[in-house]
Amino acid sequence: MNFCSQCGEKVRFAVPEGDDRSRYLCDACGTIHYQNPRIVAGTLPISGSKVLLCKRAIAPRKGYWTLPAGYMENAETTQQAAMRETWEEAFAEVNLGELYTLIDLPHINQVYMIFLADLLGGFSAGPESLEVALFEEHEIPWDALAFPTIERTLQHYYADRKNVADRKNVADQKSAAERDNAAAPVGTDYPLHSSTIMPEDRERYFGSA
Amino acid sequence: MNFCSQCGEKVRFAVPEGDDRSRYLCDACGTIHYQNPRIVAGTLPISGSKVLLCKRAIAPRKGYWTLPAGYMENAETTQQAAMRETWEEAFAEVNLGELYTLIDLPHINQVYMIFLADLLGGFSAGPESLEVALFEEHEIPWDALAFPTIERTLQHYYADRKNVADRKNVADQKSAAERDNAAAPVGTDYPLHSSTIMPEDRERYFGSA
Repeated sequence: MNFCSQCGEKVRFAVPEGDDRSRYLCDACGTIHYQNPRIVAGTLPISGSKVLLCKRAIAPRKGYWTLPAGYMENAETTQQAAMRETWEEAFAEVNLGELYTLIDLPHINQVYMIFLADLLGGFSAGPESLEVALFEEHEIPWDALAFPTIERTLQHYYADRKNVADRKNVADQKSAAERDNAAAPVGTDYPLHSSTIMPEDRERYFGSA
Repeated sequence: MNFCSQCGEKVRFAVPEGDDRSRYLCDACGTIHYQNPRIVAGTLPISGSKVLLCKRAIAPRKGYWTLPAGYMENAETTQQAAMRETWEEAFAEVNLGELYTLIDLPHINQVYMIFLADLLGGFSAGPESLEVALFEEHEIPWDALAFPTIERTLQHYYADRKNVADRKNVADQKSAAERDNAAAPVGTDYPLHSSTIMPEDRERYFGSA
């Protein structure tokens, strides 16, 4: 930022009175230009045992696989942003579930919010995708994922799915009476996972800076 | 926005090629100025049966009660932002729990993220607070809360606390053997609540526009 977006004069970068961090300041009109993190909203679209991934048609990480996600826009909700991105990148309609991963990337000023989603019908590549496809767990292209946020979200999903399946197997071996006492509803037990991705987590994807 | 913050020339508001919504565009240097929602991060600090509220010393809603919360800054995580705001507004240290309310305000381009938190020690009014105090449920100043996001978060909290207490009462009346079969751990069962606040929800606080 070099100029004030309000009045066009040059800005300087300094700590405003009563503040504790530097901002872009306009001495001409007095505007303080705050800069804040952006939300990247998206979905993990699920169809039976498969998940939907998109091969990126644009930089960064063109040719690598991602979940449909992108910058949240003004005047929409996080859920609307996640569904809009899923439509734009994969022409896919989904029923949205709960927020599933909340991942902070403080060094690039992003917050990822990925929602679990049931894929409702067909899909095809949107303008920002080269290809859209469904993957079984053993087919996931772990070495060709676009971002560490995507890898982490998929890792959580397969770990949770295994946990739920294991619990269901145990429940199936119990008597009917015992099963009725098992309180956790199988299949709805996918908790929110909050975490932070640091620069070193991104080196495998982007090299060291 | 009137001028390009990169080169200082006048901007125009129009749909860029390949986009589907209007942005501030600079024809001189080609910069597209994207604008995105901001995150307001905060905590619901709990001390035994009481919660901590702050009386606002600044506009908007000066003199009304709020939970400690404020705009997330670049280069921090959502959890760091929530803890920093709790310190700045109430000089209170907390142990952070899970994300508790995720509230979209699409008409003012905000996303509230309030975390449950255990209050660790003392507290006192920070520069943006006139007063900081602990409240029992029956003492909450429902008619003097600053924002609908705060009212909604407190409503969720007291409803969840009652549910957990009711379930615990039922469990206490069962035999020890039956209790062992009750799977839900009492006291950890505060789910994430996601919702949207629309302009009509804010009229009671700010009047109609």
